[in-house]
Amino acid sequence: MGDQQNQLPPTRAITEEEALQAKTESWYEYLVKAQPHHTDYAGIVWHGTYISWLEEARVECLRSIGIDFADLVKIGCDLPVVDLSVRYHQALRLGETAVLKARMRDMSGVRIVWDYELRSPHLPNPETPPQDILYLTAQVTLVAVDREKGKIMRRLPPSVKNALVKLSR
Amino acid sequence: MGDQQNQLPPTRAITEEEALQAKTESWYEYLVKAQPHHTDYAGIVWHGTYISWLEEARVECLRSIGIDFADLVKIGCDLPVVDLSVRYHQALRLGETAVLKARMRDMSGVRIVWDYELRSPHLPNPETPPQDILYLTAQVTLVAVDREKGKIMRRLPPSVKNALVKLSR
Amino acid sequence: MGDQQNQLPPTRAITEEEALQAKTESWYEYLVKAQPHHTDYAGIVWHGTYISWLEEARVECLRSIGIDFADLVKIGCDLPVVDLSVRYHQALRLGETAVLKARMRDMSGVRIVWDYELRSPHLPNPETPPQDILYLTAQVTLVAVDREKGKIMRRLPPSVKNALVKLSR
Amino acid sequence: MGDQQNQLPPTRAITEEEALQAKTESWYEYLVKAQPHHTDYAGIVWHGTYISWLEEARVECLRSIGIDFADLVKIGCDLPVVDLSVRYHQALRLGETAVLKARMRDMSGVRIVWDYELRSPHLPNPETPPQDILYLTAQVTLVAVDREKGKIMRRLPPSVKNALVKLSR
Repeated sequence: MGDQQNQLPPTRAITEEEALQAKTESWYEYLVKAQPHHTDYAGIVWHGTYISWLEEARVECLRSIGIDFADLVKIGCDLPVVDLSVRYHQALRLGETAVLKARMRDMSGVRIVWDYELRSPHLPNPETPPQDILYLTAQVTLVAVDREKGKIMRRLPPSVKNALVKLSR
Repeated sequence: MGDQQNQLPPTRAITEEEALQAKTESWYEYLVKAQPHHTDYAGIVWHGTYISWLEEARVECLRSIGIDFADLVKIGCDLPVVDLSVRYHQALRLGETAVLKARMRDMSGVRIVWDYELRSPHLPNPETPPQDILYLTAQVTLVAVDREKGKIMRRLPPSVKNALVKLSR
Repeated sequence: MGDQQNQLPPTRAITEEEALQAKTESWYEYLVKAQPHHTDYAGIVWHGTYISWLEEARVECLRSIGIDFADLVKIGCDLPVVDLSVRYHQALRLGETAVLKARMRDMSGVRIVWDYELRSPHLPNPETPPQDILYLTAQVTLVAVDREKGKIMRRLPPSVKNALVKLSR
Repeated sequence: MGDQQNQLPPTRAITEEEALQAKTESWYEYLVKAQPHHTDYAGIVWHGTYISWLEEARVECLRSIGIDFADLVKIGCDLPVVDLSVRYHQALRLGETAVLKARMRDMSGVRIVWDYELRSPHLPNPETPPQDILYLTAQVTLVAVDREKGKIMRRLPPSVKNALVKLSR
């Protein structure tokens, strides 16, 4: 936000969390494909498979803002899921691809809430009639846990906080 | 409901669904064990693993009342999950066992709602100090789908209905 | 081996490993059932699912001789798979059960080789025509690894060795 | 290979299978990443996870030569695994990426054999000291099965054969 140094001061300071909020209104997009091992007897993706994809999209979204999940674990911080809710609108079939959209909806203390939408992929061919299928919506809540103590952290570790601060600039 | 034995007969018959409701207040119990392949880097059961267990408990509960899930699929009826919510209270660790309690909470038309609780197993040794850990609570909603048409059924297939009627007697 | 009681004493002592060899010629049996999440689009158990069952049978076989796998991990010993081969003879279908037979075929130093056969379950009803389906055969090789050093152990930890010695008596 | 039309005729015709053999000596490369759900209590990728990756690489390799696996299934042809062998050289850890190299080694009738190597990824930075880790080698054998009859096919379906013929030109 260096260019904004010449701006008039805002009537009140925008907090980092507000800035983060604004920034994260855009979705991170993660492409998934229904491979044979993802399906069940019905020829569609087994309902539990999507949980893996939610996790993958989350990890890659964090990586995109400089947070390497494996590094986080190494410094003793884990981000276990404490709450999960999924609504299955339509099933993905064997061989189909879709875009899993993920965004951090909310962060209060060490509690981080993610929103997800799984949608049909963008059309490569503009002549194809438009089609927008919503396969799934989900919410996942994580908390930061101190791995050694096995307890919820009082605050996020510096590396995570720095990344989020960077994000909010 | 013993106190009601002295009541005057109800002006209307108790419906099958009401009877079912009463009957299913008891839990079906399914034993699970955290095997290596269920765990993740944190040495605890990976959060998606529990989804498999919810399904297994559901299938075995149905079997206990005479509904063979594979037979159901063969006659063209599927029971996909349309809604899932899980709250993770405490994580099961490698090698630990627990009791997954399942019950049909509600059935309206072709929509069936299940409740779950994952708890520490009953103590084999009465001298051991009592310990009751609640690991997880969950709700899962299924709908009956006609496999051939790929559409939600208007009513449950006879075999399922008969089993539920038998259950309610 | 009762008939052998009248035999002359062997010219050399039977080693513990030979005794173990003899003992482990009997199979440990582990019941499996094809649940929906085990299947793929073809309505049969996905070929990777069996790997989980091989592991479960191994863990439970060890437990049956007093080796708790989670305890083993806690004292710093891991038993990773270093070699795996599976032959798929016939596929298990949704809802079917089978018996996974496991035995320790060979143990040389810290290298342990397991044999497996997945077969149709024993018949509860003697009037049913006999049917013996062989679904799968497999071999799995483990080595004992020191978790802290990340290196192959020079010998098995005492708890494991004691259990195997007990087994061989 | 249109340019070769002007060449002298070979002393004997190169069979399609020979040409295929030659062509498939190059590896198809598929990038994998160890996500949390791929790991086990030891912080490394669980040994069964690799089976999923072998399948994904196979499906994507086939797609790269015009064979859509889902389409294959739709026309009634399945390619189940009948034999699998994996040697685990070194474990991939949480967050690490690797290149899964796959190639069709052999094809006789409806039997197709694949070779795999999982290796450390190519270095983006030429200044980094070279490092080439071999994580895993594997062989997988498939057979073409007529889904309706549930029997091994006598020959590959036209769409597959055409793709392979195209590949061999």
